[in-house]
Amino acid sequence: MSNTESRVARVSMAAIQEPVRTELDAVFGELGQIVRADFPLVDEVNQHLLRIKGKMFRPTLVLLSAQTTGQIGKRELTLGAIVELIHVATLVHDDSVDHSPLRRGQPTVNARFSHEIAVIMGDYLYSRAIEELVRLDSLEPLRIMSRVTNELTVGEMREVVAHDLLSFTQDDYEQLIHSKTASLMAGSCEVGALAGGDEYRDALERYGSCLGSAFQIADDLLDYTATESVTGKPTGQDLREHKITLPLIAALPQMDPTERQRVEDLMTDLTPATDDINAIIRIVEARGGIAAAHERAEEFAMQAETELDAVPAGRARDALRDCITYSIERRR
Amino acid sequence: MSNTESRVARVSMAAIQEPVRTELDAVFGELGQIVRADFPLVDEVNQHLLRIKGKMFRPTLVLLSAQTTGQIGKRELTLGAIVELIHVATLVHDDSVDHSPLRRGQPTVNARFSHEIAVIMGDYLYSRAIEELVRLDSLEPLRIMSRVTNELTVGEMREVVAHDLLSFTQDDYEQLIHSKTASLMAGSCEVGALAGGDEYRDALERYGSCLGSAFQIADDLLDYTATESVTGKPTGQDLREHKITLPLIAALPQMDPTERQRVEDLMTDLTPATDDINAIIRIVEARGGIAAAHERAEEFAMQAETELDAVPAGRARDALRDCITYSIERRR
Repeated sequence: MSNTESRVARVSMAAIQEPVRTELDAVFGELGQIVRADFPLVDEVNQHLLRIKGKMFRPTLVLLSAQTTGQIGKRELTLGAIVELIHVATLVHDDSVDHSPLRRGQPTVNARFSHEIAVIMGDYLYSRAIEELVRLDSLEPLRIMSRVTNELTVGEMREVVAHDLLSFTQDDYEQLIHSKTASLMAGSCEVGALAGGDEYRDALERYGSCLGSAFQIADDLLDYTATESVTGKPTGQDLREHKITLPLIAALPQMDPTERQRVEDLMTDLTPATDDINAIIRIVEARGGIAAAHERAEEFAMQAETELDAVPAGRARDALRDCITYSIERRR
Repeated sequence: MSNTESRVARVSMAAIQEPVRTELDAVFGELGQIVRADFPLVDEVNQHLLRIKGKMFRPTLVLLSAQTTGQIGKRELTLGAIVELIHVATLVHDDSVDHSPLRRGQPTVNARFSHEIAVIMGDYLYSRAIEELVRLDSLEPLRIMSRVTNELTVGEMREVVAHDLLSFTQDDYEQLIHSKTASLMAGSCEVGALAGGDEYRDALERYGSCLGSAFQIADDLLDYTATESVTGKPTGQDLREHKITLPLIAALPQMDPTERQRVEDLMTDLTPATDDINAIIRIVEARGGIAAAHERAEEFAMQAETELDAVPAGRARDALRDCITYSIERRR
């Protein structure tokens, strides 16, 4: 069991959301309003998506950032709905290009409807998000969110090439996780912070960025550490798909030639055997890859903590601190 | 040979673009600047897309609308690049979901790269367009283009359900062509008209909308009338894909039960024979479907003409008039 997992203190998303519970419900209502369409098929897909509602982590960041620096108004509720909409749009496209059958235990749009409908619906949700941003009649949130959405697409592209053992470095990995995960969390905090003017905007943007990177490293670590209920072994899904993440990158220079060859063999095997995957996981752990990734996540977490020191103390800031713990300690 | 095709007068896109030739070259240069990325794969796809440059019809509408009502400035060049970018983004996604191998005689992004890369690149191009719109520091073009891009996605969705003979009416068809084609042409004219303030904005928006509907009906007619060089027969590609367009919708009520049954059989045949398709084309023509669609295109064209009467006369307006002729008389 790793250091992080053995910690006793665990934070639930529900506890984090306590200070903004009412507002978060309003955000979810707003989300339903925004996606409502007078075209039956669009409406049907939207209802399906609303049913598989996630934890609303990104709207939570918007609201807590707003509460820390100013007040939550109608505008912040809309911004909360918009960031979730953008997040869902990227998930719909991701699932479609990955041919994923399930998301949060429910059929994905590509599985339940079709691949074609998933591509169109992602475009629909994203363009609705932009329309709503424009309706806020202010260029600043648009500036932030248009930059973020473009970075999300670059992140997707970085992921496409994240399969070459020899050329994909830790730097590339950190750019990738910034683009695909940290950028939207940073943007969520930044648009929320606009509620308090410009004063805490940069600090909260940096907080969100570090939080997002820690979150994604922890997520990638789960692939090496979290045990499946049936097999009692890690899933190794990323390795199966030849996705290179930090534990492997960090362990690689410490491996002997035989171990390295085994990794290379796995990366060229189109249908790797579970035993081979488990063997690589053991090598990565023995060569310090898991410990190194934990350490890097902790560094991002500490940096996020430091950024929070600069913003006004209070219940909302406490909840933002808990977000850090939540991000690096969650199991799923 | 149909009425429209037998006309002598034909207008080339090059002649239409004459008054804005220099500016159009600048738009193409701007397009190259906007899509430039420091991520190699994104750049590679962009270079491929720039090579398969189309006729730049939509930027032409932006520039001519600007020239008619005011002056073409730096801002209009950027707007020209943005509308083309949005157009290309929709084509990249369309080709991907339709699994089309070729576009303008060149491999599509899905064929040359992959389906995954096509979905991501469409998102990339679209989000770059929004970023550039935001950089113009003005909400009005954003309002127009965000509305249009959302309507484009609704149009895609309308197309998904445009396969049911019994329920897909002429009204549905006209809504579909407005969403998928007329909306972007209307938006192009409207953002261009902003160069002259608000005075001619609505008239040019309505002109663009009618132009786009006429353009799409003419395009759908080609499927029934344009002859392939090899076979000397119409391609009937829409019928092959069970896509219902105006000629069929208009002919259907005039058909006898036997003819109608043949159409229904074709629509349920997964791989219809070319002879069957040609038979349906003959029935559609005999039952007045082609003539009726021509007539509807002419109505939209006349309405577009009327809208132009309200805007200042000059070389640019003459070119906008030629766009109408071009739209309903082009062969491809």
